[in-house]
Amino acid sequence: MISQTDHHFSQPISGYGVAKVLESTHPGFNKGDLISGLINWEEYSLITNPESLMKIQHMDFPLSYYTGILGMPGLTAYAGFYEICLPKKGDTVFVSAASGAVGQLVGQFAKLSGCYVVGNAGSNEKGKISSPRYFPNGIDIYFENVGGNMLDAVLCNMRLHGRIAVCGMISQYNLNQHQGIKNLVFLILKRIRMEGFLVIDYHHLYPKFFEMILPLIQEGKITYVEDPVEGLENAPAALVGLFSGKNVGKQVVAIAHE
Amino acid sequence: MISQTDHHFSQPISGYGVAKVLESTHPGFNKGDLISGLINWEEYSLITNPESLMKIQHMDFPLSYYTGILGMPGLTAYAGFYEICLPKKGDTVFVSAASGAVGQLVGQFAKLSGCYVVGNAGSNEKGKISSPRYFPNGIDIYFENVGGNMLDAVLCNMRLHGRIAVCGMISQYNLNQHQGIKNLVFLILKRIRMEGFLVIDYHHLYPKFFEMILPLIQEGKITYVEDPVEGLENAPAALVGLFSGKNVGKQVVAIAHE
Repeated sequence: MISQTDHHFSQPISGYGVAKVLESTHPGFNKGDLISGLINWEEYSLITNPESLMKIQHMDFPLSYYTGILGMPGLTAYAGFYEICLPKKGDTVFVSAASGAVGQLVGQFAKLSGCYVVGNAGSNEKGKISSPRYFPNGIDIYFENVGGNMLDAVLCNMRLHGRIAVCGMISQYNLNQHQGIKNLVFLILKRIRMEGFLVIDYHHLYPKFFEMILPLIQEGKITYVEDPVEGLENAPAALVGLFSGKNVGKQVVAIAHE
Repeated sequence: MISQTDHHFSQPISGYGVAKVLESTHPGFNKGDLISGLINWEEYSLITNPESLMKIQHMDFPLSYYTGILGMPGLTAYAGFYEICLPKKGDTVFVSAASGAVGQLVGQFAKLSGCYVVGNAGSNEKGKISSPRYFPNGIDIYFENVGGNMLDAVLCNMRLHGRIAVCGMISQYNLNQHQGIKNLVFLILKRIRMEGFLVIDYHHLYPKFFEMILPLIQEGKITYVEDPVEGLENAPAALVGLFSGKNVGKQVVAIAHE
């Protein structure tokens, strides 16, 4: 019998990544194909349910883009901003964790939509909270990646009929008890819509998203910053760094190069 | 010069009420007309901006109904439930302050829409919090009138793609500092939409609302419980009672009878 603990430690951690097919008995995948999706933190994997993986079709981009701008974070930014925030030209937009995998795209989408954007990034809590001050007339759209005190500060600065897309609350995940949010009464006073979402509900938008994003990358109208780390042995420290905002850009771990 | 404090105390309190026109120089209002809207807590009033008042047209209902089911609370329940909660047949609906002016209507609207409804009322905090237990499979719609611990308890019991219409947070208004809400991460996990609203944004729906509600009252398919108090001198205690859930039904103060 394997104990729960042994079993737990023998399972590799999974994450969104890119991999090359070395062998395949599945008709949809051939040797040499490149795939992206939820894979394991290991050098070689046996994948028994490849249906959830995507085959990489557009070879003129760095492969790492399929873990970021052309993968889950890209679609997250797209669905959250366009489907939840419903931006209008001239809207004021605030993005927290704005240098992260998702936030950096939301900021660029907002600019492309004719919005005024302020982003906030890094681990300095004071800097985070003071960011709403850049909006003397209030915030129409808040793209929430952080939670906690930041959310409380933003709520006081929201504009009438504002929208808050709740994408993440990374400041809260490792706390034993989440911080209490005290300013929710502004939801009523300012008639604010606050909506949580997960990218898994928007996978059907991938074709529409690619149609928009591929030319934007090719024409240089959108850029994507990555924060690469070499070697599987450095992956744990890179993961932990995310929770204190150490990364600048999408955190990527390179296990092998083509 | 009148000091700020003197001025404050010399102003009568205003509230939604019904009144009879005794004299009028405004072409839209004649002696004997009955009106409803925001008026003062006093026996006789000089109204210089009558444009915001509604003339009472349907004389086959108790006049007090125009402070409740046919007035601001009625439209609040209607707009909040139908426009914000977007109910579907079979949805599970939880209403807090369910015996109040608004809550009692939301409960009845939900039943008429084929929803499963549980309401909660009264001042017993423990009873309030345990109410979500009546939903073994979770809550699709929460009509929020209370805030605080109740909201935190409900958030843990919401269903996928649930909707929270934030109508009021009466447990919080008289606190020096509002209670912190700790379970907002469920907005993400369960993809919940939480939306605050004020009835003033929905005045254009009055005709549509009356079209629905008048036959329902006439056919006895909807009822409305009032909690009447006699005399202006008892109005302050009645107002204070609202904040601890003392009223059963819409709190009405009768200053004069026809």
